[in-house]
Amino acid sequence: MARNPERRTALVDAAIEVLADEGARGLTFRAVDARAGVPVGTSSNYFTNRDDLFMQAAARITVRVTPDPARVEKAMRPAPSRELVTDLMRWLVQRMEDDRTGYLAMLELRLEATRRPALRDRLTQSVRANVDESARFHREAGLPGDADAFLVLYLAMTGLLLEHFTLPALLAGPEGGSGAESTVDRLVELVVTRVVPPS
Amino acid sequence: MARNPERRTALVDAAIEVLADEGARGLTFRAVDARAGVPVGTSSNYFTNRDDLFMQAAARITVRVTPDPARVEKAMRPAPSRELVTDLMRWLVQRMEDDRTGYLAMLELRLEATRRPALRDRLTQSVRANVDESARFHREAGLPGDADAFLVLYLAMTGLLLEHFTLPALLAGPEGGSGAESTVDRLVELVVTRVVPPS
Repeated sequence: MARNPERRTALVDAAIEVLADEGARGLTFRAVDARAGVPVGTSSNYFTNRDDLFMQAAARITVRVTPDPARVEKAMRPAPSRELVTDLMRWLVQRMEDDRTGYLAMLELRLEATRRPALRDRLTQSVRANVDESARFHREAGLPGDADAFLVLYLAMTGLLLEHFTLPALLAGPEGGSGAESTVDRLVELVVTRVVPPS
Repeated sequence: MARNPERRTALVDAAIEVLADEGARGLTFRAVDARAGVPVGTSSNYFTNRDDLFMQAAARITVRVTPDPARVEKAMRPAPSRELVTDLMRWLVQRMEDDRTGYLAMLELRLEATRRPALRDRLTQSVRANVDESARFHREAGLPGDADAFLVLYLAMTGLLLEHFTLPALLAGPEGGSGAESTVDRLVELVVTRVVPPS
């Protein structure tokens, strides 16, 4: 196994692009080498097999969408309130928009997980750790809404993100209106208002 | 174009299986012929190109998950109430479970739609028609919850179905508990209780 960490990260990022652009079935060592612009055979020095490549892509997407602690600290300066929850959910959508490729690649990984039990176990662990950590954060920050409210909020945001990234015009309404983005902002506010009690 | 409608339906159903099992990239005329057990070249008499195959698969999934009007009529006999909304949402999950292949194929189509504008337009139209029709049904049946409650319910159910079908153990909780299915029933009830007002 090769040990150059920058090279490894570049290869995993290339794998994430291949996933988003071509789907899980397109993710081969050769496709990763081509996307990363490295000699054929390079990926085979960094990944034991395709399963390993899928696993490392999943782990890397999680790292990419995790916000910087300093920005979290800044975001949490206002008093805990329903409005703050809305702002935090809008920030979540923004982070996903900033890494649209990562979002789509994760959806490809979820589908591939229906065919690969080891990947499914790993993704389940990783998504569960993320949900548990977010629930803990919500509680310890004193944000309004109990554990069940958080869970319903999580499910509604999961649905909203799926619609927004795969069929963006759907949420923009029949008129198109003032554009998908501002409609998403409005929808996030609606979801939070309906699911989270006033502070 | 060949005109045998049973043959066409069998080919489209085979295409849906290929989508769920191998992903959008695996969906070729040759793969459909092989899955349907028909001579190589048959699909090319029924579909003008791969775009057409994707479109027809999408339309067919919609038909497959649409409930029989007689069963809808029977389901709607109880007085409209929050409990009835819960029963209807559980029935929705059940229909998706009965056609897991169709659900996964639709998710593949959503991802493929990010790469094919014509497919994206068609899916957007079709999903929007479905959401609009469900909202109209909710309203005209006198079910509790205004249009915004329906929308949040739709988003939360969309998220719940994505989790349930791609990472089923996630919703079953860390203990596994009494199994994913009963956990899903409990979650559906939680979502409805939090989003829809009491009747």
